[in-house]
Amino acid sequence: FDAEASAAVARALDGKVKPLRSLGDLEHLAARLAGIQGTAEPHVDAPALVVCAADHGVAADGVSAYPQEVTALMLQSFAEGTSAVGVLARQAGARLVVADLGVAEAPRLQPGQNQVLDRRVRAGTADSAAGPAMSLAEAQQAVAHGVALVDDLVDEGVDLVGLGEMGIGNTTTASALTAVLLDRDPARLVGPGTGVTGEAFARKLRKVDAILARHRDADDPWDVLARVGGLEIAALAGVVLGCAARRVPVVLDGFITTAAALVAWRLAPACTDVMVAGHLSPEPGHQVQLQALGLRPVLDLRMRLGEGSGAALAIPVLRSAVTVLHEMGSFADLGLDDERPTA
Amino acid sequence: FDAEASAAVARALDGKVKPLRSLGDLEHLAARLAGIQGTAEPHVDAPALVVCAADHGVAADGVSAYPQEVTALMLQSFAEGTSAVGVLARQAGARLVVADLGVAEAPRLQPGQNQVLDRRVRAGTADSAAGPAMSLAEAQQAVAHGVALVDDLVDEGVDLVGLGEMGIGNTTTASALTAVLLDRDPARLVGPGTGVTGEAFARKLRKVDAILARHRDADDPWDVLARVGGLEIAALAGVVLGCAARRVPVVLDGFITTAAALVAWRLAPACTDVMVAGHLSPEPGHQVQLQALGLRPVLDLRMRLGEGSGAALAIPVLRSAVTVLHEMGSFADLGLDDERPTA
Repeated sequence: FDAEASAAVARALDGKVKPLRSLGDLEHLAARLAGIQGTAEPHVDAPALVVCAADHGVAADGVSAYPQEVTALMLQSFAEGTSAVGVLARQAGARLVVADLGVAEAPRLQPGQNQVLDRRVRAGTADSAAGPAMSLAEAQQAVAHGVALVDDLVDEGVDLVGLGEMGIGNTTTASALTAVLLDRDPARLVGPGTGVTGEAFARKLRKVDAILARHRDADDPWDVLARVGGLEIAALAGVVLGCAARRVPVVLDGFITTAAALVAWRLAPACTDVMVAGHLSPEPGHQVQLQALGLRPVLDLRMRLGEGSGAALAIPVLRSAVTVLHEMGSFADLGLDDERPTA
Repeated sequence: FDAEASAAVARALDGKVKPLRSLGDLEHLAARLAGIQGTAEPHVDAPALVVCAADHGVAADGVSAYPQEVTALMLQSFAEGTSAVGVLARQAGARLVVADLGVAEAPRLQPGQNQVLDRRVRAGTADSAAGPAMSLAEAQQAVAHGVALVDDLVDEGVDLVGLGEMGIGNTTTASALTAVLLDRDPARLVGPGTGVTGEAFARKLRKVDAILARHRDADDPWDVLARVGGLEIAALAGVVLGCAARRVPVVLDGFITTAAALVAWRLAPACTDVMVAGHLSPEPGHQVQLQALGLRPVLDLRMRLGEGSGAALAIPVLRSAVTVLHEMGSFADLGLDDERPTA
């Protein structure tokens, strides 16, 4: 994190034709992007949304409102550009990059559709309540895919990355991961996900308890990741690590992508430096995760969809933050001196 | 408000490829715009930001961190396109319309600069702590300017209006207006505005008390508006009324524009139907105003600038809400039946 570039941006914003600090979070965000990118001229010229998808062994137990087949169907809808994140990415002027890390049934795409990158490690994880979700080698491979993906994108000019995910059952996995990594009571983390209530919700809670009974003793973050899963979360942790390595801001989405951010943070604590929280999910564990990472969300629109929808919506706000810095006039331009009251 | 169009949009969104209601406020906003515009195909194709400026007699007493001359200087910066709202309006693809309702010293513009519409009613209000801010006829004229302004814009195709304002001292006026209209203790409403602290803040509070001592007995909203002011607030109340008459969504900005919305609501209660709260100001009275109007803000970015900056930043979110409605695929498209779990 380039504290000097960040401070230079804060100073430049102090000289703009407005009361000091009156643009609030917009100013913090511009200064933060400057610190991350290591330049007093931060930019959001070529953002990309990286959506990773995979299936979860835990889904077999009815922890989700949807059957596992929906993961592959949604990949289809990502390829067609008709998913929420497809629409919102277009709207935000962001490139949409979708990677299959291990959907149970590999999607069959038609010619002319958007590409789904084949980064399949295995056809979905095993049930983590019954054993490890995957092997350590598989977890490492998924993380490596995420790192490599970012590396390629940055080489192609991408200057900001938003995270997205798809995987039926992945709020169950993310709840268990968060409980282990932050040593929290799962009852305070588990929420309705895509909409489970009543008996299905009780089943989901019991499932998380069963995962924890088996893996709570895990401490090493690689070990936690391999035993609890999932494949798309591992890849997203890799995307965060890749962003940290390349000094590219990474915009978190909801509960699942922030679980991936927790994994990345435990693997390499300094990578919180490149994180921006895009939105706040109503999933109760999300607030807990963001507090652990010291992040304040840009948006709070009570969305609980995932896919990267919250990250996509935050991009125009981030772009506005840097545009204010570049295009606003200063008091000096108006012939006023620089002596203005502080707030 | 067209409840049928609104319900049709909610139903259409229920059929999209996502868990029910999982896009949260984005879905509420799309349905609300539909109800306001009276169509199941709501649109944000030609938004405009209407910024009204005027001076306030109360400013002479040092209630602001800035001298009164800054109002005219800021109009200059609006004309140059280098103000925050100028930058953010461009970014949001919104037309910026600036009107002078009574800046103390009329701005001198250079050829080639953006127009500032001359809607001057008088050269700033009188000190409302010493007497009425303006006459009833003047208040009516300012409101009429606002109504006519919207009428022209809608004739030209504008389909959504954001509110903005400029006027040194206008948080003092807005605090007094809000206290009278909602019968509240001013100590709970008055905040730092553009940044007054310490003795200046105490002076501002005393000024609001003095205004209330003289005008608290006013009950008729026209009477309150004329006696407390200000000219730009009256015009903005007219803009709200004009939007209600033309069924055009009006996006409120911060504390001052919402004071104008309170005036419009007291003049014609049904006009809350067309309001959308763009952002939440840290000014303590803003939350109180929004609660009275039954509105939840789209954004909370701790901005306290005014000008329409918060309304401008909300526009991309509103545009995303209608784009999701128009561009997302449905479960039916994927060959899935319509029986999905409710959240």
